Parts: sequence; C-alpha cells; structure tokens
Amino acid sequence: MPQKSSTHPNRDVRMRGFASRSTVEQALAWLEPHERPLEAETVPLADAADRVLAQRVESGVDVPQFRRAMMDGFALLATDTQGATTYNRLMLRVVGEAWPGRPFDGKVEPGTAVRIMTGAPMPEGANAVLPVEQVEIEGDQVALLGEVPPEKHVGRIGEDIARDSEVLPAGRRLRPQDLGVLSSVAVARVPVVRRPRVRIVVTGNEILPAGSTPGPYQIVDANGPMLESLIERDGGVPIYPGIVPDDKQAIASALEDDCDVVLVSGGSSVGQEDYVPVLLADRGELAIHGIAMRPSSPAGMGTLAKRIVFLLPGNPVSCLCAYDFFAGRVIRALGGRLTDWPYQRRRLPLASKLVSTVGRVDYARVLINDSEEVEPLAISGASILSSTTRATGFVIIPGDSEGSPPGAEVDVYLYDQ
Amino acid sequence: MPQKSSTHPNRDVRMRGFASRSTVEQALAWLEPHERPLEAETVPLADAADRVLAQRVESGVDVPQFRRAMMDGFALLATDTQGATTYNRLMLRVVGEAWPGRPFDGKVEPGTAVRIMTGAPMPEGANAVLPVEQVEIEGDQVALLGEVPPEKHVGRIGEDIARDSEVLPAGRRLRPQDLGVLSSVAVARVPVVRRPRVRIVVTGNEILPAGSTPGPYQIVDANGPMLESLIERDGGVPIYPGIVPDDKQAIASALEDDCDVVLVSGGSSVGQEDYVPVLLADRGELAIHGIAMRPSSPAGMGTLAKRIVFLLPGNPVSCLCAYDFFAGRVIRALGGRLTDWPYQRRRLPLASKLVSTVGRVDYARVLINDSEEVEPLAISGASILSSTTRATGFVIIPGDSEGSPPGAEVDVYLYDQ
Repeated sequence: MPQKSSTHPNRDVRMRGFASRSTVEQALAWLEPHERPLEAETVPLADAADRVLAQRVESGVDVPQFRRAMMDGFALLATDTQGATTYNRLMLRVVGEAWPGRPFDGKVEPGTAVRIMTGAPMPEGANAVLPVEQVEIEGDQVALLGEVPPEKHVGRIGEDIARDSEVLPAGRRLRPQDLGVLSSVAVARVPVVRRPRVRIVVTGNEILPAGSTPGPYQIVDANGPMLESLIERDGGVPIYPGIVPDDKQAIASALEDDCDVVLVSGGSSVGQEDYVPVLLADRGELAIHGIAMRPSSPAGMGTLAKRIVFLLPGNPVSCLCAYDFFAGRVIRALGGRLTDWPYQRRRLPLASKLVSTVGRVDYARVLINDSEEVEPLAISGASILSSTTRATGFVIIPGDSEGSPPGAEVDVYLYDQ
Repeated sequence: MPQKSSTHPNRDVRMRGFASRSTVEQALAWLEPHERPLEAETVPLADAADRVLAQRVESGVDVPQFRRAMMDGFALLATDTQGATTYNRLMLRVVGEAWPGRPFDGKVEPGTAVRIMTGAPMPEGANAVLPVEQVEIEGDQVALLGEVPPEKHVGRIGEDIARDSEVLPAGRRLRPQDLGVLSSVAVARVPVVRRPRVRIVVTGNEILPAGSTPGPYQIVDANGPMLESLIERDGGVPIYPGIVPDDKQAIASALEDDCDVVLVSGGSSVGQEDYVPVLLADRGELAIHGIAMRPSSPAGMGTLAKRIVFLLPGNPVSCLCAYDFFAGRVIRALGGRLTDWPYQRRRLPLASKLVSTVGRVDYARVLINDSEEVEPLAISGASILSSTTRATGFVIIPGDSEGSPPGAEVDVYLYDQ
C-alpha cells in the first residue's frame, strides 16, 4: 500500500522523498532469498557451543566400544547361576577385579567370577553380571543368591551410539549435551556454519563514543552498543571500529569493508542519510527505502557487492525496531539459525485499548502489569529509548488492524530472556 | 523419604553405603541459603551485555540535555503562526538552519524562522516547530500554511530520561537496548554482579581429553565439554585446566583451587568417588549424599572453605541431570540471575504412558512428535547420553507420582533455545 511521500513527517521525505513506501511484507519478501546459511568452517570442539552444525555428524566409533557392565556386581557365566536362591547359595571362586579403564586380564571359566564395577569392560568368558545385591562375599569366594539370564546387565557395543549412525543432524544449534556426545565419538573439530561478520556504521559528528560525557548539543552513541549486543545475541560477529565521521568518502569506505552485512545507523547531519541510499542505488541495489511501519518508516535495505546493507534510522527505538524486524533475521539465517523472533511470547489480555492506524504495522512497547494484563506504553514517542527499557516487551499490530479493545488477547514478545 | 542403602544398585552404596537418601526437596532446601548474588565489580560498557546489574543506575544527565525539534520543519514563535491557513499564507524570513550537533547561532526574532531538522537544538527565541508539510519555501522566505501552539513538536529537556531518575533497577539482566540507554546517560563503567568461577574436576585414568581418539577400554571426556557449555550458558566462568589424574593428592589440590563452585564429575576408578565425599566430610561439610531421584541418585553436595562443591555422577546423563537440578541454579543465582530452569516450557499431552516410581523424582527425556504429543524416550538407560540429544526435552515427575496415562498433559522443558 504505497503512500505519497508527502504524508511522511521525516526529513528524508522532504529532502528526497520516498518514491513509494513498501509494506513490511514486501520488505520481508525481498529479504527471503538472502536468508541462507553461509559456508561451513571447522572449529575446535571447545569453541562449538551454541554454533550451528553445517552438516550431519556420523559416528566413526561405537559407543561404548566394548561390552561393559551396567551394574556393580560379579561378571560370570549365566549358566553358573542356574538354581541359585537365598536358600540354595551357589559358590564361585573370585579370580579378579575389573574396573573402568582397568580390565581383568584373564578369562572367566566356569566356576569362577570377577568382581566388576559399572562401566568396566566385561572379562573374556563372562556373559552376565549378577548384581551386588544378590551376592554375599565370603573370603575369596562369592555366594550367589539369585539367577541371571545371559546378557543380563551387560551393555552392548554401540548400544549408545552405533558406528556410522547419525549423531546429530545438519542445522543443529549445539546444546551442551551435544558437545558431550561429539566428544564421546572422538570428534575433535566440528563443521559449523560460519558466523556472519556484521559491520556497524554509526555516523554523526554530534555523536560521541560510548563512555564519553556529552558536551552541549552532543549525544552519546546509543545505537552502536545496542547493535553490538543484538548482533552477538543473533550469532553474528560485530565489527565496530568506531563512529564514522560525517564524510562521504569515510562512509563509502566503511560500506566497502570486508563483511557479510552492513548496518548503517543514520546520523542526523547534513546529507549523510541521503548519501547511503544514493550510494547503494548507484553502486548496488537500493531495494527498499521507506516502509509502512511505525517506528522505523525511514528504514531501507539493499545490496552492495555481496554485502547486504540495512539502513537503520538513527533514532534508537526505530533502530531497534528495524533491526529486529529485518536485519536480525538475516543475521540469524546467515549463521544457520532460525529466522523467528528471538523472544519468548505470551498471550495475555489488554488492560486498555491498543490503538493503531490501518496501512502500517505498529511495534508497540507494552508493560505486563501485576494483574497479568498488557498496558500499552508510549506508542507515540518513537524517540523515547527508555520506553524500550521500561517495557516488558512489545506487541506487533498488523497493517490491516486498527488496534484492539481492552480485554482482547494479544501476543507479547518478551524483551527479557 | 530415606531408603535403606541396600536397595540402591550403585557402587557407592556397596562400598560405603548412603546413611540415608535425601529427597530432591531437602537438597534444594540446603542449597537455598547459597543462592545469593556475589559481590559487585565494574566492567566497561562494552563488556556488560547480558550481565546483571549489581545496583540501580541513576542518570547523571538529562536526556536530551537540550530542547530539540521533534519534526523536520521550521523553528519559530508560535504567535507568528496565528491565523495561517492554505488560504491565508503568512510569510516569515528564513534566517538560518539548525542541524543535530550544529545549532543555529543566532536568535529567532518575531517575523523570522529557522529551518530545523529532527533532533536539532531549538534556537533561542523559538518556541514551536511548524512541520515541513505545512509550509512552502519561497526563496529566503517560508510561507506558513497552518498554525501551531507553543511547545508543539518541541522535545523537553529530560523528556526521555530525567537527571537523577532511575534508569535501570538492580538485578536487571542487561538487554541490548539497556546498553544503549546506559551509553546515552554517559555511563562508562557498569556495576555488575561478579560471574561465579566454576572449577570443573573430571577424574578417571580411563578418560581421555576431548578431541582424542580412544584406545581399547578408554572413553573420551563427555562431561567436561558439556559442563563448560552449561556453565557458560548459566553465566559462570568455567575453569577446566584438564582431566585430573586418579590421585588423591591431585584431586584434593583441585578442590582447593581458587573458585566459587567446584563440580566434581566422578570418574569410575578405584576409590576416587569415595575420596571426595570423605574429603568434604573431613575438611568441610558433606551435606547431601545420595538423592531420591533418577538418574543422578549418587549426586551430592557440600562446602569446602567458601566453595560450594557438587558431586556429579560420572555417567553423562546423570551428570547433566544433577547439574540442571542443583548446580546450575546456584551458578545462576551467584551471578545474579534467576534460579528458574533455563528452558522454555510447553504443556502438551502424552502420546503414551509415562511411568515413574513413588518415592523418587524422575527426569524423563521425551520427544515431541509430529502430532504435538509427548513420547517418553529411554526413561531407563540412564547411561545413554544420546537419549539427551535425541530428546526434544524432558519432563520432571514428582516424587509422589506414579507417572501419567496417555493423554494427560505434562510440562515439557525444551532443550532447544
């Protein structure tokens, strides 16, 4: 639903005008072909936590690699236990011990047994374990108080993981126990999807680096630290050498840096916000510029060489919103993760009316109050960054909705993890 | 509900016996006083992502620090717009421009206006902004097509964040936008709860370090890599210099390492599993040893000097279960996080019967099938680590339950993030 640019109260509009606004759906449709995992790289197992497998992993070994005792007790021949009860104690001679990593050297012959611990290799000749609860030890003899069938309490070779079987599927985001399994099957290096390198370009002569104390009419960089943290959350590698001066050549050079994704957080000084779209349109593709949403309507996206470039509004709330709607999902996808919103969701009733305008998507910050109801918070005031820190989360109001009345249930995406 | 040790099929029992088993509730009750945040430390803002605030942060500045334009347009005196319409165009002389970081130097007198961009400081004398949509520019003059009241489209000093107000509360786990806000209020170093240092002690002469290829009767360390990843997930700093030899002195020395928490993953060689409980009982406190749960019944916990020590069974599934039930919550709490299970939960019906035994808590690995039903997976076979990688998650069956019939709804904790 393109709108005339003159309806849009943004400087970009006045200075260049959006030829037409795109819908959120159109922007997402343009992004979709870019949502493909990057190539594989191999990393040491120690660095593989939370990475995404680039290919399935098959086991080169059986786990366990040997027959092992599954109980503490005595390794013996099952036939030697036949008829044993507490009233018919059968005696065997104990010829040794078997421990994990320290097997019994000899062979278990009929009439003998080996004391064995859980996890220890089964001695040659033995085909069952009689648990310790069913014996009594008497010097170098053991009295059997019960029977066991063959293979009882014996773990098979490959019982946990069989050689050549799939251990983990391609695309798996590696969990702690996955690392344990990979280690068990003797994987030393893990094939994972490369993490996307994401260049943050914050421009603006009035913007000071994080940690500075602002002088008159200066502001301290909010978007840089926020974007670094968002990129890391989404599995990317942030590249942020510092604020880029308001200089066309410096900005052009930053856009050419070696990376997979560029996030340009528009400063607000003369001409710079115009420069990036023009540069993109000239040298690459400016696919989307101006989106029917609030906040973030000045957002845009395109490509420059192989880099995907996002134009994020300089306003911090708009920057967060545009990142989460568009850039974050691409970064997750490039790293092999799901594109879904990385927030937990709760369905709760509205405490009061949630207002929106047909024709644009709204990103409404909300509080969940003590009655577990959703209270809209500063749906206007796009520039109020503290609205995103006071909020419990946000609600997305579709473009075809005028909002919802009190009591209506809405999905709240929770900022907290 | 203490049970006689003779009912427990574990080597520990035979070799020493548990005087009595504790319930899961008793173990959690013992842990509770240890679930306190560590002391504060300050870190640079760039390192504060996902850390937990040790104290509330108040703003030392107003944000914004100056009156600013909230729209692109013309800064002027509201009285000069009185009576302006598209049919009664009032003309003002444009005397300059105001940009973010580059304010207009002079004063706006009656009959004049300054072209102004969103975010720019309001010039002296001006008290309103007439948006660009309501003007027409004609040479060095601007025609006003509408009226504005005083203060319209002017952002107040401190409108986003007022000086001395609370920016973020103590205990806050810092979100990306929180870093933006902290940067905005000129916070350079952030007071956060220190991350707990967690020493991993894996023993066992048959165990090879991750990345090794096992020889006969050897196994590769699964618990070390798994615990490292779990500790990092929970905000701790893993300390894992390598596998500790099966040597009493080496183990005793490892237990004395500088740290907040020790996780001992029992190897399975002679006497070592006994040694740690004895050492704890002699030199500190062995508070809990043997817990009415499955798996992980041999788990234990205590203190040695100021360190909290967990005895985790060597079996990887038991190790994971005991970590998640007990150690993980303490590590999270020490770092200032919530003790809650760090897994998302879904309530779904059982596809088939889920069996348990009254008197113990069960940790049952389950699959969610294509019909969105819960299928129990290998509730026996505690030693099958691959059961935790094939599983979608787990169900906790309370000690007073015999399990649940098909169709009953259960809470599934999802391993995936």
